[in-house]
Amino acid sequence: MEGSEKNIKILKGNIIYTETSDLFNIVKNGYIVVQENYIVGVYDKLPEKFKNINIENYEDKLIIPGLIDLHTHASQFAIKGIGYDKELLPWLNTYTFVEEAKFKNISYATKIYKEFVDELYNEGTTRAVIFATIHTEATEILMNLLDEKGIVAYVGKVNMDRNCPDTLMENSDESIKNTLNWIQNCSKKYKFVKPIITPRFVPSCTSYLMNELGNIAINDTIPVQSHISENLSEIQWVKELHPECKNYGDVYDKFNLFGQTKTIMAHCVHLTEEEINKIKKNKVLIAHCPTSNVNLSSGIAPISKLLRKEVLIGLGSDIAGGECLSMLSVMASAIRMSKLRKVCFKEDEKSLTLKEVFYLATKGGGKFFGNVGSFEKGYEFDALVIDDDNLWKDNKGSIEERIERLVYLGNQKNIISRYICGREI
Amino acid sequence: MEGSEKNIKILKGNIIYTETSDLFNIVKNGYIVVQENYIVGVYDKLPEKFKNINIENYEDKLIIPGLIDLHTHASQFAIKGIGYDKELLPWLNTYTFVEEAKFKNISYATKIYKEFVDELYNEGTTRAVIFATIHTEATEILMNLLDEKGIVAYVGKVNMDRNCPDTLMENSDESIKNTLNWIQNCSKKYKFVKPIITPRFVPSCTSYLMNELGNIAINDTIPVQSHISENLSEIQWVKELHPECKNYGDVYDKFNLFGQTKTIMAHCVHLTEEEINKIKKNKVLIAHCPTSNVNLSSGIAPISKLLRKEVLIGLGSDIAGGECLSMLSVMASAIRMSKLRKVCFKEDEKSLTLKEVFYLATKGGGKFFGNVGSFEKGYEFDALVIDDDNLWKDNKGSIEERIERLVYLGNQKNIISRYICGREI
Repeated sequence: MEGSEKNIKILKGNIIYTETSDLFNIVKNGYIVVQENYIVGVYDKLPEKFKNINIENYEDKLIIPGLIDLHTHASQFAIKGIGYDKELLPWLNTYTFVEEAKFKNISYATKIYKEFVDELYNEGTTRAVIFATIHTEATEILMNLLDEKGIVAYVGKVNMDRNCPDTLMENSDESIKNTLNWIQNCSKKYKFVKPIITPRFVPSCTSYLMNELGNIAINDTIPVQSHISENLSEIQWVKELHPECKNYGDVYDKFNLFGQTKTIMAHCVHLTEEEINKIKKNKVLIAHCPTSNVNLSSGIAPISKLLRKEVLIGLGSDIAGGECLSMLSVMASAIRMSKLRKVCFKEDEKSLTLKEVFYLATKGGGKFFGNVGSFEKGYEFDALVIDDDNLWKDNKGSIEERIERLVYLGNQKNIISRYICGREI
Repeated sequence: MEGSEKNIKILKGNIIYTETSDLFNIVKNGYIVVQENYIVGVYDKLPEKFKNINIENYEDKLIIPGLIDLHTHASQFAIKGIGYDKELLPWLNTYTFVEEAKFKNISYATKIYKEFVDELYNEGTTRAVIFATIHTEATEILMNLLDEKGIVAYVGKVNMDRNCPDTLMENSDESIKNTLNWIQNCSKKYKFVKPIITPRFVPSCTSYLMNELGNIAINDTIPVQSHISENLSEIQWVKELHPECKNYGDVYDKFNLFGQTKTIMAHCVHLTEEEINKIKKNKVLIAHCPTSNVNLSSGIAPISKLLRKEVLIGLGSDIAGGECLSMLSVMASAIRMSKLRKVCFKEDEKSLTLKEVFYLATKGGGKFFGNVGSFEKGYEFDALVIDDDNLWKDNKGSIEERIERLVYLGNQKNIISRYICGREI
């Protein structure tokens, strides 16, 4: 017997995960053995040495890795589903900045962040990388709520010191000082939640600010998140703001915000080949946000091509460019957008398959957190148990068909148990 | 006082409809007066003559026209949300034909059709144009169920006499005979439901069969529905099957199935200019099925362009190419697809606006049924009452924003009352 029995947990059910993006690992009526936080193994027949341990028998249910949201704005939760007649820049000015300014008010922030965290939990998102606002006090409230809930998250106090309304404009030095204080205050405070350096995007941050944020990231080994190459007008704007840089990515790279520490870049719709190569070289993780990219008419990121180039990619709900926190819905959206990219451009481009988007929503995004998002040996045990009985009126299909229908027609009500870091929450 | 009081119904609430596709008609806290089945008027202040009539006060709720589904396959209800890795023709062979063959079995047909009709009701679809299967007995069961529910529908017994599996292949003369008997049997049997001539699509029907179906349509003044120009392989196949015809539309036109009686053609993704002109001239109504068109990688129909050409258009859920009967979801899908068409093709193409898709889902599709889908004077009164309280955590937005959020985030639970032909069902 490995370890003491009381640290071992065994779940039984139909187990599905993806070691690679081109294959489902499926064990029907199989067993997952977990010791402490970590997977010991997945078995179709339970090894003799575990025979005396109690089994959580989920019978015909599906057991999948927890879903990972690599990019979302908790502070935009109250404005989802409106304003989608606008593209990115007017949408930011008309809706987003007005809403984010409200987070100076702690009681408003508490109310909205509580709703956000509850919904994140309900939708089965086990780990997330999140934008808050410039307000450090409200940002810590969000971090508290996530930690209490047991959701693993990186949360960013946003930095902005140019091209934004007065209500959100920071003095550059204060922005840096507040960021340092905030990091010091919250770095070791939480069990599940960590800070992430969050320059909003190039147009909102002066070179001075970006430079200092890059220094903080490197000095304190703090990861970084931002937006890149979402919309053509935004890209043109960045070009005008930084004629000294070769491209959008080059601006972040110059300031050590492009993979010098662990980095997520959201959107990546219109990257140049040079930017793609740099992203791959620097191991920047792309957060693909298909729903947001269509809602704000940004375009369709070439994810299938990027996958074949072995760039790191996960999925993001991008609330409130996306209207919905459900990563199942984002998976369906990713498939749909890739089909339209193929149909419209008739390039040597492939549609994303079900297994590819499943991989992106689990192991792909999980890489930002370490060995996360799969049921391979040694991975942290995050899982969802799915009851899909209501989706099948007659006999159920194959396991792969059950996953497909879950992605297209399932919702939070199909999730009956959530495990994060080995613990049921 | 016009008419007797007991034939007049008054509803109060926030009233939204579209007389044209470029404008919302909105009356906040307004009154709809209905006499028998028909709208007398919409008022912001109730005229004196109606003062003694009881008011159904829906307070801050939204009152919108009933939603119209111009194209859906009741017989594919059990296979929604699977098989979307395939394009149209392999999808038909692998999933659809296998499923439709099951409708020879009356108990299976009854079970699935009952679930379909319940869901149609739940989703707030007040009128629909529906494909059944080749089986007349099962088709009549579907018609019975719809009529009992009070949903207005055209239902088609499908005709197929070539290029399909034996289980669905009809002998041409029997197909014609069965169709004639079926029409005779059901033409006057129902209050809300009528038959519609339904050649599946050109590849499934011989010229002989199409010719006879066109004759029946004209002789008995029966409307027609079919598919056209959904997928490039399908179009190529039709070209090979009918080298004597100029294009796909020309095949139907030759056999009097293209507007000679009231006609719906579903999809219209890749129409030629010549076909578009013929569709306009013949007043064929296009059923735009955006969700299905992306799920089966068919493409994006140029709906904004067609709208500006003043072609008649409505929306279709196209279960099971589409995975969902909700016309709210189809409306969101139509907006999304149009944005991607604009982004990808960078043509002189506009995205569809919220008011345009609202128009398509109500008055646009309603035209197939007469004066339906609007709250203009003399229109038949079909309406949904919407409680969107759960969609707004803080203060509600404008009426237009409430409609937008309903389309993106609402579902059947937001529909609290349904009226069809002046009657609450």
